[in-house]
Amino acid sequence: MPLGDPAGIGPEIVAKSWVMREARGLAPFFAVGDPAALRAVWLGPITPISAPEEAMAAFATGLPCLEIAKAGEIVPGSPSVDGARIAFQALEVAVGLARSGSAAGIVTAPVGKEQLYGVGFTHPGQTEFVAERCGVSSHNAVMMLAGPSLKVVPITIHIALADVPAALTIDLIRARAITTAKGMQKNFGIARPRLAVAGLNPHAGENGALGREEIEIIRPAIEQLRAEGLDIVGPLAADGMFHARARETYDVALCMYHDQALIPIKTLNFDDGVNITLGLPIVRTSPDHGTAFGIAGTDSANPGAMIAAIRMAEAAARARIAHG
Amino acid sequence: MPLGDPAGIGPEIVAKSWVMREARGLAPFFAVGDPAALRAVWLGPITPISAPEEAMAAFATGLPCLEIAKAGEIVPGSPSVDGARIAFQALEVAVGLARSGSAAGIVTAPVGKEQLYGVGFTHPGQTEFVAERCGVSSHNAVMMLAGPSLKVVPITIHIALADVPAALTIDLIRARAITTAKGMQKNFGIARPRLAVAGLNPHAGENGALGREEIEIIRPAIEQLRAEGLDIVGPLAADGMFHARARETYDVALCMYHDQALIPIKTLNFDDGVNITLGLPIVRTSPDHGTAFGIAGTDSANPGAMIAAIRMAEAAARARIAHG
Repeated sequence: MPLGDPAGIGPEIVAKSWVMREARGLAPFFAVGDPAALRAVWLGPITPISAPEEAMAAFATGLPCLEIAKAGEIVPGSPSVDGARIAFQALEVAVGLARSGSAAGIVTAPVGKEQLYGVGFTHPGQTEFVAERCGVSSHNAVMMLAGPSLKVVPITIHIALADVPAALTIDLIRARAITTAKGMQKNFGIARPRLAVAGLNPHAGENGALGREEIEIIRPAIEQLRAEGLDIVGPLAADGMFHARARETYDVALCMYHDQALIPIKTLNFDDGVNITLGLPIVRTSPDHGTAFGIAGTDSANPGAMIAAIRMAEAAARARIAHG
Repeated sequence: MPLGDPAGIGPEIVAKSWVMREARGLAPFFAVGDPAALRAVWLGPITPISAPEEAMAAFATGLPCLEIAKAGEIVPGSPSVDGARIAFQALEVAVGLARSGSAAGIVTAPVGKEQLYGVGFTHPGQTEFVAERCGVSSHNAVMMLAGPSLKVVPITIHIALADVPAALTIDLIRARAITTAKGMQKNFGIARPRLAVAGLNPHAGENGALGREEIEIIRPAIEQLRAEGLDIVGPLAADGMFHARARETYDVALCMYHDQALIPIKTLNFDDGVNITLGLPIVRTSPDHGTAFGIAGTDSANPGAMIAAIRMAEAAARARIAHG
């Protein structure tokens, strides 16, 4: 796994995950980056490796780390240009290893986007970068947030709320839903996933009284998808979709915008939410949080989401083997 | 409490609440409506009363019911014009009793809005009707949803999502926040309530990159309110506001639109959410659910939210006495 920004909490949560490898039953993994980033925040054993094949044997006694370059001086909490550069390189190397089959998947630690933009990174985020390197258009790579009690896919993501209604089209909803359904099969081994689609407006529009997007866009998309064989329901009133009994009726909720998806998942699974990218030829997960520069180096970062991301990556890799 | 639509689950949950009066420590209450609506779904003891003063003595041995008219034939699950008319009348009578001090407050059971519109009811909902009868403009009556783990106020409510950005103004946010703060003092006895305000856009707009409403409207409103002495923070990223640790930092969350407020409260408190109206001279609460015509008469309605509404009304009435 690429260590992310060396000044963020990435190295700390990777090290803490290794410490808990037996307690949490984690499959072997290795870090990609500068071992100094780990040493800056951790006194435990690090085993330098020069090829992924060495990781399996090394994992039991030390955290394997594939050193790709030196990040320069590392000060937790103080991001630097050198740090951003190595975060970028580590991501590139890790994707290559997964693409070639040398790694079963990648689990990305958090990066500082502002820092990455300063070293020539031109993608909105790691998800889009990984998609491009896999030859997948970012239109077809889908971000899913998954926790123990809920999985959500936002149809639109990082745009202003005022721009959401115009961004919704039948084609976009169809593309996201189809990638989501295939991704649920491939990564979670669910043969016939049940999709639930949220409405855009309060009470899913109340038959047009509170907005017409449900009638003109969302419902037609759902009907087409159902005709093509998807197990899909909606548009549902979003506020009634996320309590415990409602969640039992579907495997994944498709939401129309960022907060509609992220409010419920973060309300329920704040400390162990995983970001998994669907639609890729490789497995890619990441903890659903940022670099947390403010607490880096204080030994207070919670590795829960990173551990959940590692476990989900392993499960997805196994599901892909079983699924063929 | 007005029984709401006699064909809905109102009568059943009122009766079930009375049955649980000792187990849940409920203060005495009385029904307002047609006792036949209770008899249609319940075999327990009903004590007809002709004035509110009789309720206290009657409560121990039977559910006191102030009969105001006959609803005609009552078929649970099949709303009728007569039923809507008596629901309307019961609400009118109950507000009058609370206004005159004959009742400590009102707890409204669910009504069918479509049915009410058919009998001359012209308000968007019971909240606006009660506000008008109390001489309060609906601009100054604030709907709060309150559960055991969260209290939220939506700044805009039943409008299409596309209309939300234009509806937000500094004045509207200020008016809602001030009413909310006063309402928290008056109904919950919190001397200096802590208000947390959500942003409109993903990540609260990321300094304008994902929308400018935070910069142009929400932040100026918050700064004015803080200058006037309110304990208020924001705009916060909405998706990070509702997990357990975040909720400990405030007493009430002000949200920009319906689903931003209702998704978290219904995710957390689906079965015991209470709708309480702030800004009124009287106490008014109601269970945060509808008539559920589909299950009326099947004895399967959960009285949890009604019981929570009764308890909150009692607590609010006591807080007002203590607050003076």
